[in-house]
Amino acid sequence: MRTAGDVTLALAIDRTDPRPLPRQLADELRTAIGNGLVAAGEPVPATRALAQRLGVSRGTVVAAYDQLLAEGYLLGRVGHGTVVNPALRDVHPPSTARRHAEQPAPTRARVIDLRPGQPWTADVVNAGWRAAWRRAAEHPLAPIPAAGLPGLRSEIADHLRRMRGVRRAADHVLVTAGARDGLGLLLAMLGTGLIVGVEDPGYPSLRRVPPRLGSSVMPLPTDDSGLVCDDLPTGTNAPEVVVVTPSHQYPLGGSLPIARRQALLDWARREHVVIVEDDYDSELRYTSAPLPALAALDDPEDGCVVTLGTFAKTLGPGLGVGFLVAPERLVEDLRRTRTDLGQPVSQVAQWAMADYLASGELRRHTQRMRREYRRRRGLVLDALGGLDHVRVKAMDGGLHAVVESEIPESELITRIRDRGVVVAGLADYWSRPAKGAGGIVLGYGGVPIDDLRAGLEAIAEATHQGSGASSETPHGTHGERSG
Amino acid sequence: MRTAGDVTLALAIDRTDPRPLPRQLADELRTAIGNGLVAAGEPVPATRALAQRLGVSRGTVVAAYDQLLAEGYLLGRVGHGTVVNPALRDVHPPSTARRHAEQPAPTRARVIDLRPGQPWTADVVNAGWRAAWRRAAEHPLAPIPAAGLPGLRSEIADHLRRMRGVRRAADHVLVTAGARDGLGLLLAMLGTGLIVGVEDPGYPSLRRVPPRLGSSVMPLPTDDSGLVCDDLPTGTNAPEVVVVTPSHQYPLGGSLPIARRQALLDWARREHVVIVEDDYDSELRYTSAPLPALAALDDPEDGCVVTLGTFAKTLGPGLGVGFLVAPERLVEDLRRTRTDLGQPVSQVAQWAMADYLASGELRRHTQRMRREYRRRRGLVLDALGGLDHVRVKAMDGGLHAVVESEIPESELITRIRDRGVVVAGLADYWSRPAKGAGGIVLGYGGVPIDDLRAGLEAIAEATHQGSGASSETPHGTHGERSG
Repeated sequence: MRTAGDVTLALAIDRTDPRPLPRQLADELRTAIGNGLVAAGEPVPATRALAQRLGVSRGTVVAAYDQLLAEGYLLGRVGHGTVVNPALRDVHPPSTARRHAEQPAPTRARVIDLRPGQPWTADVVNAGWRAAWRRAAEHPLAPIPAAGLPGLRSEIADHLRRMRGVRRAADHVLVTAGARDGLGLLLAMLGTGLIVGVEDPGYPSLRRVPPRLGSSVMPLPTDDSGLVCDDLPTGTNAPEVVVVTPSHQYPLGGSLPIARRQALLDWARREHVVIVEDDYDSELRYTSAPLPALAALDDPEDGCVVTLGTFAKTLGPGLGVGFLVAPERLVEDLRRTRTDLGQPVSQVAQWAMADYLASGELRRHTQRMRREYRRRRGLVLDALGGLDHVRVKAMDGGLHAVVESEIPESELITRIRDRGVVVAGLADYWSRPAKGAGGIVLGYGGVPIDDLRAGLEAIAEATHQGSGASSETPHGTHGERSG
Repeated sequence: MRTAGDVTLALAIDRTDPRPLPRQLADELRTAIGNGLVAAGEPVPATRALAQRLGVSRGTVVAAYDQLLAEGYLLGRVGHGTVVNPALRDVHPPSTARRHAEQPAPTRARVIDLRPGQPWTADVVNAGWRAAWRRAAEHPLAPIPAAGLPGLRSEIADHLRRMRGVRRAADHVLVTAGARDGLGLLLAMLGTGLIVGVEDPGYPSLRRVPPRLGSSVMPLPTDDSGLVCDDLPTGTNAPEVVVVTPSHQYPLGGSLPIARRQALLDWARREHVVIVEDDYDSELRYTSAPLPALAALDDPEDGCVVTLGTFAKTLGPGLGVGFLVAPERLVEDLRRTRTDLGQPVSQVAQWAMADYLASGELRRHTQRMRREYRRRRGLVLDALGGLDHVRVKAMDGGLHAVVESEIPESELITRIRDRGVVVAGLADYWSRPAKGAGGIVLGYGGVPIDDLRAGLEAIAEATHQGSGASSETPHGTHGERSG
């Protein structure tokens, strides 16, 4: 085993900082690695020694190291000779900074990642969260229905009634590992060789599921109100399935008007199409209550809407617990499919979420997150709202913003990247060459608020030049939502 | 809200009983419901009041109620008017026992479920298990690779090296939700319309995955040593994938001899077949160390073996964490497929399992389980080993036994069921009408040891008559393994 690394490493812990200590320490270590204070391939300090020096618990150091292990900054195992990933040598060559290890590390320009898809998860871990998992770990792993823990399915049915106006029995709810798992389950039930209609532009991740399961996608046009519903393909041209985001079109943000909802349902009934309602962030609304889910207009017995939901936007995409709600006529077959393919969600996670919902913790956490995101949304509008050459699309909810731009998209993205900020390009959301205006999509949930401020400032600066200069670098980032 | 149920219900808690208190209480309540002491549709006692009367913590009562909610005996939400599932009215009509509620409930003949697939999970919840989940819940849900938490993948790579002789980098490991999820991932990568060879008889659950994903299965013959490898189909008749259980053929128990392993690998290389090694219970061996995994003989770079593993047999099928190990040539494509379909395993469960493996808890728990199952295996051999008309197949490992029988299978199953015991029929494991001897498959892991004793006694009794009487009831139970 290697000897432990230099415990006198310059790392500062600030107890007045609102970030949890493990996160602070992980951020500090990441910076230290970036600055070459700990070189690629070198061991990091022993957890016990470092904890002692910094005056924090050993658990804090272990958690910080675990985080960096997960991110790939460190390799090995906490307590067993953890080293800085040698592969980082090319990225972060050992610098002269190492010689000045005892002096505060110079603040190196970091990359601020404003790509969409990551909510603010640092505040999830609190007493209610811990209690839910603690209690969940008390249950022996007993046989439960493949559709999921009945207790969790009841809680989800309650949640849908209160939050989304959808009144369904717990029996109509299946636990999923997320939206993609739910779509995969439905497609496995329906068979292969299907045509799946998707919104264009739309969520790139869901669009990639059908081809993986032997079906193909058919892009369908959208406008500022969401899916265009008056000219949907019929007869042999109709898709078997269509995936829509009625409450908050992704990424453009429109909410499907009631007349279109009705038209969509009529069409689906006539053409025997299953509508997949991807209800991905309806709990994050700032300006007004969202319309009830599309499923609320559907027939609970003989209907055609399957609603997919997750807790990815409020708790984090890594939670791996979501749900699918289906009308009676489809439920039995979905359950059989799930029985054959297996329920992927750990029973412990199901108990924990049932507890977290039943105790009201999810509701309280969602309220806190709504306040946090409303504030962040305010920063985005303040920073980018009055600029020339770009237009921020109305954002009623969610945690990303679309900024349409007169400046060519790849040009704008390059300029922003030159200022140390990464965003997604609107073109990534189209399944064919974009027909609408170019622009950028930025996520305002995933970074600390100061990074968001700095990032917005950089974006604003990048727009000042107008569409003058040219760019040779094509944009290559992927616009992602979570779930 | 309803008023709470009768707190004076006759329920006895015995602190000398080795069962954990919540389990004891759940068992008592289940019996009380079965006896009609609490009628279908009626509320159960308030948790606080019942806890007080029984002198247990409220958490114990909540856990017992949760368990029964999960099982469908109760409906509603703990603390919010939980009632006995009204659907049980037909199953358990309110009986006169209710009038004698203050007297001890008569012990009603229960069904003893010896169908295979359920390990002994009551002892999983201990200090090490709790600590793993407690620490796991401290990690905010951060973005991690779709292949799974690097820390968990390293632990699994270590585990495979020590336990299965398979030396692979953590990079070659993908986290799955279980064996079926792993097979589904591989098939999604390979495409649809494939032929998947399966052992006959074999594990019915894995056999049901390919048809759900647009492929079909081809039964392949087995004998007492596992898959017959000298006459495998070639050329255009060869399947694209073959699923095998080399270390412990399921359900017959044979271990694939080294010469067959080599022949299988040669054939797969020649015919470009991907071998899926379903390594479902190699850690549970009683008589000798298992042979290394088939993957240990394969080329780590350019090989053809994909190994699926889970912790279902040691911790319980509801854990929902498993793994897939693939040779270098397939890894990148598997990772991309997982990225498109999403990683279904909750990050919290991944942190918990990484911790549980790293701390040595899994190893210690597996040792305890091996002792427990060895003892249970001894009971099976003692009870059924010397009987006329039946023959217990050699059991080197696992937690099920196959009992071949001269008595027609459906006849024997009916006789056993008439004695209050449920087992699986061997015919369920064949994908076409069975060619071998009939018999039963019984799981000895899932029930308390006294139930196992009583069940074995009933089975022995059922065989005494020989193959005299006839039966009209066809067997219909499904033989299931877990995972």
